[in-house]
Amino acid sequence: MRNAWPKVVVIGGGTGIFSVLSGLKEHPVKLSAIVSMADSGGSTGRLREEFGVLPPGDIRMALVALSESRRTLSELFNYRFNGHSLNHSFGNLFLIALADLKGGFAAGVHEAARILGARGRVLPVTLDNVHLMAELEDGSIVKGETNIDCPKHDGCLRIKRIFYDKPCVLNEEARQAINEADLIVIGPGDLFTSIVPNLLVSGMKEAMKETRAHKLYLCNLMTKFGETHGFSGADFVFELEKYLFRDVFDWIIFNNVKPSLERIQGYEREKAEIVEYSLNDLKDRHAQVWERDLSRSAGFVRHDIEKTAAVLMEVINQING
Amino acid sequence: MRNAWPKVVVIGGGTGIFSVLSGLKEHPVKLSAIVSMADSGGSTGRLREEFGVLPPGDIRMALVALSESRRTLSELFNYRFNGHSLNHSFGNLFLIALADLKGGFAAGVHEAARILGARGRVLPVTLDNVHLMAELEDGSIVKGETNIDCPKHDGCLRIKRIFYDKPCVLNEEARQAINEADLIVIGPGDLFTSIVPNLLVSGMKEAMKETRAHKLYLCNLMTKFGETHGFSGADFVFELEKYLFRDVFDWIIFNNVKPSLERIQGYEREKAEIVEYSLNDLKDRHAQVWERDLSRSAGFVRHDIEKTAAVLMEVINQING
Repeated sequence: MRNAWPKVVVIGGGTGIFSVLSGLKEHPVKLSAIVSMADSGGSTGRLREEFGVLPPGDIRMALVALSESRRTLSELFNYRFNGHSLNHSFGNLFLIALADLKGGFAAGVHEAARILGARGRVLPVTLDNVHLMAELEDGSIVKGETNIDCPKHDGCLRIKRIFYDKPCVLNEEARQAINEADLIVIGPGDLFTSIVPNLLVSGMKEAMKETRAHKLYLCNLMTKFGETHGFSGADFVFELEKYLFRDVFDWIIFNNVKPSLERIQGYEREKAEIVEYSLNDLKDRHAQVWERDLSRSAGFVRHDIEKTAAVLMEVINQING
Repeated sequence: MRNAWPKVVVIGGGTGIFSVLSGLKEHPVKLSAIVSMADSGGSTGRLREEFGVLPPGDIRMALVALSESRRTLSELFNYRFNGHSLNHSFGNLFLIALADLKGGFAAGVHEAARILGARGRVLPVTLDNVHLMAELEDGSIVKGETNIDCPKHDGCLRIKRIFYDKPCVLNEEARQAINEADLIVIGPGDLFTSIVPNLLVSGMKEAMKETRAHKLYLCNLMTKFGETHGFSGADFVFELEKYLFRDVFDWIIFNNVKPSLERIQGYEREKAEIVEYSLNDLKDRHAQVWERDLSRSAGFVRHDIEKTAAVLMEVINQING
């Protein structure tokens, strides 16, 4: 392994995976992104309804994150037509057209990666067309990722469990990537709508058990009202273990540099709070728990692309010993 | 000029320019395509109406013709979405998005050429948003390229003149290309809907007069009902001279190998006929009139890509002589 680039698999969706991929692609690692296929909102949702296609939204973001210096292509990919009959992002249309031309969604995504000069593979977690469901603690059922993400209820109800409306199996290429990986990075990202949708897929738990890869969890910086309101760092870990298995992680990484009160004030309206954690909560887990400065030094409270990549490379170097 | 690649400007639109560009791009010439901006049919027409954009249709075909071995990109460009709300070709959406991102249609087309690895420039003949009009010999007026191309009348009425609904000027980059060219190739292509729309643009006649470039006309193989029904080879030349000037051409090239009766039979339904010509009709013109085997040896009666390019290279070698 010293002579070959280490194989890193990043599992997630949305903007969380964007930060991790954007940073890691500058380092000597062989990257694969396994991406949630639960998106049902906006342009993606309307395309799913009209064309019966798999959701391109999260795939699109991962492709843009991995694309080289091709700024225009990235801009183009995120470009949104605002015509009455054409309210879609260009990247979504691009993926749908390529999937049709190449005779399948996965093949279309590979071709898109080639055209964009992506520094890594993007693998849909499943090729089955399914919708995400949530059971809340009061027993009510919410259907569709976008309705779970932006709840119609007051946001205080906890999510009891997440499931799919139909059975779906792990994409074989994703299974192989997990099997051959040296390191698997999960998170950051919306727990129930970007991370767990990957873990729910039939075959994922087994793949994660069978692989020799080290496994790492990058915990979110902020809680999310309606999803993880009041969650501690350990709560995130315990929830993930429910869908995988106890002690799945070899590394758990928390951010230990709190943003200024001023920066957090903007989050009060959406009732998002800094994730607090106690090492004590995780003392009976075998994982190394690292506390690092991971957040951007200004602006939105998000993972800093370079800092995050640097910590992940530190882990990789430790694995390489 | 012996040391630099000769500069060739091809003026046209539609499928005619596609054949010439597809062939010439394999030869050592510096290619610029000046393309008609009159298209008003299909996806292009609906996009013009909805977005108020310049017509991407002919530009798209020229870009695909010039794109290197990137087969998938070409396929993708011509891909047509068939959703109810999305009945557009991908290439058109691509050009509209790039034009918007790059702050202008011409800049968007250049960026598209770069992304597609096009072996040549594509220049809209004008950047003014105009519609083509025709006055028929009975004095009636037809509006829009697509209505002239597919006439509502019985097709026997001759077109008296073609004009635009509003003034429009020659794109400055196109003017420069004409000015610096060694050879300008006009045609083949629908006379009134692909070729003349370029010549009508204000400033074109002057640019063609001022340039030192040699000028060549590649005559169509077949007449077109409703446009050039009954036209002889010389009629095509005389019509072009009306919009430019007498003796504009240094070369006029006719096809002299007639396709089999069997192949022509398919054209009877659309009342298209082989273009007949007599050298005598052009004896008072200064142009060299060449008669060559230009048509494909089977299938549709069209210019053969390689044969056409070979004849054009013969002309270029004579110029370089």
